[in-house]
Amino acid sequence: MAHDIQIVTEAELRRLVSLDLSTVDVIERAFLALAQGRVAMPPILSMVMAEAHGEVDVKTAYVSGMEGFAIKVSPGFFGNPALGLPSLNGLMILFSAKTGLVQSLYLDNGYLTDIRTAAAGAVAARYLAPAKVETAGVIGTGVQARLQMQAAHLVRPFQRVLVHGRDHEKAQRCADDLASLLGIVAEAVVDPAALVRDAQLVVTTTPARAPVLRAEWLHPGLHITAMGSDQSGKTEIDPRALLAADAYVCDRVSQCEVSGELEAALAAGIWDRGTPPELGEVIAGHKQGRRSEADITICDLTGTGVQDTAIATHVHAMHPTAGTVLRA
Amino acid sequence: MAHDIQIVTEAELRRLVSLDLSTVDVIERAFLALAQGRVAMPPILSMVMAEAHGEVDVKTAYVSGMEGFAIKVSPGFFGNPALGLPSLNGLMILFSAKTGLVQSLYLDNGYLTDIRTAAAGAVAARYLAPAKVETAGVIGTGVQARLQMQAAHLVRPFQRVLVHGRDHEKAQRCADDLASLLGIVAEAVVDPAALVRDAQLVVTTTPARAPVLRAEWLHPGLHITAMGSDQSGKTEIDPRALLAADAYVCDRVSQCEVSGELEAALAAGIWDRGTPPELGEVIAGHKQGRRSEADITICDLTGTGVQDTAIATHVHAMHPTAGTVLRA
Repeated sequence: MAHDIQIVTEAELRRLVSLDLSTVDVIERAFLALAQGRVAMPPILSMVMAEAHGEVDVKTAYVSGMEGFAIKVSPGFFGNPALGLPSLNGLMILFSAKTGLVQSLYLDNGYLTDIRTAAAGAVAARYLAPAKVETAGVIGTGVQARLQMQAAHLVRPFQRVLVHGRDHEKAQRCADDLASLLGIVAEAVVDPAALVRDAQLVVTTTPARAPVLRAEWLHPGLHITAMGSDQSGKTEIDPRALLAADAYVCDRVSQCEVSGELEAALAAGIWDRGTPPELGEVIAGHKQGRRSEADITICDLTGTGVQDTAIATHVHAMHPTAGTVLRA
Repeated sequence: MAHDIQIVTEAELRRLVSLDLSTVDVIERAFLALAQGRVAMPPILSMVMAEAHGEVDVKTAYVSGMEGFAIKVSPGFFGNPALGLPSLNGLMILFSAKTGLVQSLYLDNGYLTDIRTAAAGAVAARYLAPAKVETAGVIGTGVQARLQMQAAHLVRPFQRVLVHGRDHEKAQRCADDLASLLGIVAEAVVDPAALVRDAQLVVTTTPARAPVLRAEWLHPGLHITAMGSDQSGKTEIDPRALLAADAYVCDRVSQCEVSGELEAALAAGIWDRGTPPELGEVIAGHKQGRRSEADITICDLTGTGVQDTAIATHVHAMHPTAGTVLRA
């Protein structure tokens, strides 16, 4: 039976959707739902196409009470830059949670993922960073480096931001962008140890396969969000740092065990603290996060299907008739 | 970077794509690729939404040498008929196998699945049915009952078809439709044992959870295709029939073990023949199917992602500019 399907392109979504506190609140509620068991979230479907130098991930989640559920398809083809194309693409499909009918096709090429990922960083900072953050730091210089600092600034309006990257020129460009975006002092720094020392909130946004943040650099009153690791073998944080922290919090334990920072700590056999708390459990008050301004906290974000369902449902609720409507 | 995306609705697909020998050949090549190891096919992603009386399955496969790969999303919401909506919906997304860019969105509500499922039945009949089929039979009276008989008739042009269903009126309507579609004699029969006795090729197309075809009914020169079971707990064929047959062939062993006819035979502890052959292995000549006209053969079809990738790639190759083209 034919019904209306909304199709919204990346360009249209960029005009309609931005990172703001309402988006952060939507993502916070998604994590809360996860902690309250109001969610069905199957393991990620993942397919590697070795000869095409490509992979594709499919994530989904059903959140009880939400009008829709999203299925997100994220292809990554790593020969694309040589063809003048971005590596990452994909789309989100929003289905009615009552009838399963397709409601919206968001041809976002990963834009909504960028937004919901940054929003999760803001939620982590809101619940785990010290109340007072004067200086924030970011290790990484890509899209998420910028977005994570914008997100953190929404909930901890720091006056200064430090940027470190392997490529110092890219770090400088990222710092320049952040200075202009946030209207604050921004510096590119060569030494990541100095960045961590001077900051109260640090976000790592790299695809690193060896730690970029050492346990020796931790200091009282520091919060770290590691959002780069999203696949087995990736790691940003020295596994000993997870033990040195007063709280290590996962977005989803089952994912962090196989694709987050916990993977390396488990593989090294040094993790001895049982099941870590999840961000939603900290939001719900079921588990403890930061206890004092002096605590050291780490939040490990691997990316969850509830965030996709939450952002897609939010976009549909805000802009139900945007884009092209097709009767199909 | 914006590129053209083709969007084709169910109504458009029904005008463009039908079940014919070229489609059967495409699906045959997909099974062959599977047997030759030229395929990546991850396990099906499945999510149950109990409170919504719904579920959703996601299938995908990459076939080396094919221009694209498909991801198929199939929601089933079983309260829909009460709302005047079909239970099954969904779409296929075709991606370039070189860049991962979305090429086509087939808003088919399951139509392409119907076609590729029937085509697999034709492939099974082509390789496993006796050379001479005078009478075919179908147990089940739905869309696939009609399509499976049309498909089998493409490769075994029988003169007579028998239809059995729990609801005899539905069986009669199905027989009337088949008489008109195929231009042959078609009869609705009350007794499924008589149907099997009189037929050389039988297809079961039911959602049964207890066998609808007994082992005692097998006779020399019979081929059975069981295509209804696609989930744990579903079963159409008496497990003893699998052992009584000269060949029991799976579309994909790993799927038949958990969602096909093999599941019940394994659960009953009566399966003692090791790993069954797969349809692609029979096509490739790596494994034996039917050895003589008197053999009894059974083919178990649970539905595979390679069929989805094959049909979507085929439709795109045949109709690259059909539907609506959106720059996104």
